[in-house]
Amino acid sequence: MNTADSGLPVTVPSTALFTDQYELTMLQAALRSGTAERRSVFEVFTRRLPEGRRYGVVGGTGRVLDAVENFRFEERELDFLRERSIVDGPTLEWLADYRFRGDIRGYPEGEVYFPGSPVMRVEGSFAECVLLETVILSILNHDSAVAAAASRMAVAAGDRPLMEMGARRTHELAAVAASRAAYVGGFSTTSDLAAGFRYGIPTVGTSAHAFTLLHDHERDAFVAQVDSLGSGTTLLVDTYDVTEAVRSAVEVAGTELGAVRIDSGDLLLIAHRVRQQLDELGAKQTKIVVTSDLDEYAIASLAAAPVDAYGVGTQLVTGSGHPTCSMVYKLVARAGSDEPGAPLHPVAKKSMGGKSTVGGAKWAARPVDADGVAEAEVVGTGPVPGGLSGRLLQTELVRGGEVVAREPLDAARDRHRAALSRLPMSARQLSRGEPVLPTEHV
Amino acid sequence: MNTADSGLPVTVPSTALFTDQYELTMLQAALRSGTAERRSVFEVFTRRLPEGRRYGVVGGTGRVLDAVENFRFEERELDFLRERSIVDGPTLEWLADYRFRGDIRGYPEGEVYFPGSPVMRVEGSFAECVLLETVILSILNHDSAVAAAASRMAVAAGDRPLMEMGARRTHELAAVAASRAAYVGGFSTTSDLAAGFRYGIPTVGTSAHAFTLLHDHERDAFVAQVDSLGSGTTLLVDTYDVTEAVRSAVEVAGTELGAVRIDSGDLLLIAHRVRQQLDELGAKQTKIVVTSDLDEYAIASLAAAPVDAYGVGTQLVTGSGHPTCSMVYKLVARAGSDEPGAPLHPVAKKSMGGKSTVGGAKWAARPVDADGVAEAEVVGTGPVPGGLSGRLLQTELVRGGEVVAREPLDAARDRHRAALSRLPMSARQLSRGEPVLPTEHV
Repeated sequence: MNTADSGLPVTVPSTALFTDQYELTMLQAALRSGTAERRSVFEVFTRRLPEGRRYGVVGGTGRVLDAVENFRFEERELDFLRERSIVDGPTLEWLADYRFRGDIRGYPEGEVYFPGSPVMRVEGSFAECVLLETVILSILNHDSAVAAAASRMAVAAGDRPLMEMGARRTHELAAVAASRAAYVGGFSTTSDLAAGFRYGIPTVGTSAHAFTLLHDHERDAFVAQVDSLGSGTTLLVDTYDVTEAVRSAVEVAGTELGAVRIDSGDLLLIAHRVRQQLDELGAKQTKIVVTSDLDEYAIASLAAAPVDAYGVGTQLVTGSGHPTCSMVYKLVARAGSDEPGAPLHPVAKKSMGGKSTVGGAKWAARPVDADGVAEAEVVGTGPVPGGLSGRLLQTELVRGGEVVAREPLDAARDRHRAALSRLPMSARQLSRGEPVLPTEHV
Repeated sequence: MNTADSGLPVTVPSTALFTDQYELTMLQAALRSGTAERRSVFEVFTRRLPEGRRYGVVGGTGRVLDAVENFRFEERELDFLRERSIVDGPTLEWLADYRFRGDIRGYPEGEVYFPGSPVMRVEGSFAECVLLETVILSILNHDSAVAAAASRMAVAAGDRPLMEMGARRTHELAAVAASRAAYVGGFSTTSDLAAGFRYGIPTVGTSAHAFTLLHDHERDAFVAQVDSLGSGTTLLVDTYDVTEAVRSAVEVAGTELGAVRIDSGDLLLIAHRVRQQLDELGAKQTKIVVTSDLDEYAIASLAAAPVDAYGVGTQLVTGSGHPTCSMVYKLVARAGSDEPGAPLHPVAKKSMGGKSTVGGAKWAARPVDADGVAEAEVVGTGPVPGGLSGRLLQTELVRGGEVVAREPLDAARDRHRAALSRLPMSARQLSRGEPVLPTEHV
């Protein structure tokens, strides 16, 4: 029986193998050369936003904290590494005792970021920090990509609620994380029961075309659904003829019909026609839900249409054209020896080929103008200028290996809304452009 | 403690909540209306390939079989559904006894597919089949997208091995499935230890820039790595100056140095220079590995360069521009009553808005010409013409709820290579074009 395909484990599994092999071979070599215990600072950042995007959204921080906490090498992970001869005996012994005992600071979840923003900073011995690269990047790169797409869709949708419906378009567990990131970015609900189970996100869903096709007549399907789910349900009206279906829907459910769903065709045109028909039938409170290959642009194009809610799938879970962020995890400073208190030296890749980095552990601050609107993303090393100390963006997430920043998912969602509201108005434009704040290195 | 973020569970967890809520509400309504037991056929297919792609690759079949087998509603799933009032009491009772007892046929993993190919056919009662929609689509849409990208990269790489290194660019468990799909599509190895652990895929990896930066001098890092991993290791040579690094690498490891890795810059130019330098230093057997933002086009552009292996990350796990397939799961036939033996009627969505479907359970065959080259993807309902009966593509996967088609991953990998070799040569062109086989409906 194969088990690892599925999720929702019933005991706490290790996250330690969500790791690229080179992290363990570097550990082995560093243990041998005596450099493993050098105090080190790794930083997570991106060199750029996806082309045309005006801001990024930090998603997945909460999941990173869980992953770090569960990053332990248990017997079966060690057996695997031993049997495959991936690392030597001394390294296996070191791994058996491993737990992260360092410090992590970072942008809290839901915060926005820009090129060069030090989204996360991991500090400890080289050995304990280097192991976390892959799992931290996996989570932040995936979840932030979805959160950013969700945020743009939420901007486009305005006050209308967004439903996440993309589980079928992505890996089954990526889907659960995507629901979570979508919620942070501004979605209200999800169709994914696993996301409801795991994160408490409200779940929604009523019926598909298959249910109508199962019955001999569309009306039979509507009767069955209303009998079972009540007249407040949402009836899907585009299996055959929409006008027929809407008439039938109101006949069956009465004017208290909750909503009708349109899943194909020219949504703008059909929504107007359906609204008119519903009103004429007296179903003035019946809502219209649309759900067909929407992205932020399609949502925006329906702003003037009589639509009450949007369901979004593919384009949400694939980051609306940008399914991953380009966050990297780089060593930016380290001690010259493993003496306690040895000073940290900035380090950076310097080859002419590209991918250069800026050495030194960084702080970031976002000063605001007199109206409270953010003016710049200021990133620096060394002392923080006095005027910026109240505008620092990183918070303490892990102290001495203990997670100190757990929070409910709604806190991240609220934080994102607040952060977005403090950006210049042009952040809310969907059109391609430069990052809405310049990153200033000081 | 949160647990569901991680993978590698130690007991067999249920896959039953990888489900969109509407599947359960349809079940509830169908149970109530007496239509739940109508024998039904659902089919998985795509209406189109990603723009410009010439073939699709079936990935994830083996994972689907595991997911179907583990699709059970245990106490905690039922508690969740009860507490949230997602379905009513009779539905909860029905779910408690649920296991899929129907039949599944489909294209075996690694096979290629085209628009309209009936990639999978699920047959049983409406109730038992409708529940599987989301989990089947999640797996096939994700894994097939990665397998298709991997296949194109393998075509571009020719005989040179491909290493999968994308874990950090996608969800941590999607990464494990991506490694698996990449292997089916033609990759040889992965950096992802969880993929090695879970699927036995060979793992690789030696060191990153951080390891060089950890040491006071690049040479110290090389010495440490060679001391620990032997002279057959791969040294990363682009942290500072590549020419300096190559000289230093051969000094430290000798001419038996296994390989050097280049991770940035103009790979074509640098590979030529490094090859010449290695040869001049007598390290004629030392291989060159390149790993910087490669996709199938970049790989092809390096065909004439002295490169021995490619490492691919982002573009692989994101499907090289197409991170999901557009596979759908549609009811195509169902009985008119729940009488045993009641005939199946074809059904199809028919609204003018789009997303129409073709009713009826389908077979598919791929006839070949005198040279054994495939000529068309023939898809039909009803009896199979005699000349095609030896060319049928679907195989039996699940019979009466029992999985009958487990196979080692290498079988799928070999099948893919064989299927690709039987397509017209134009399948191997990377340029945009039409599907290499026309789909003929008969």
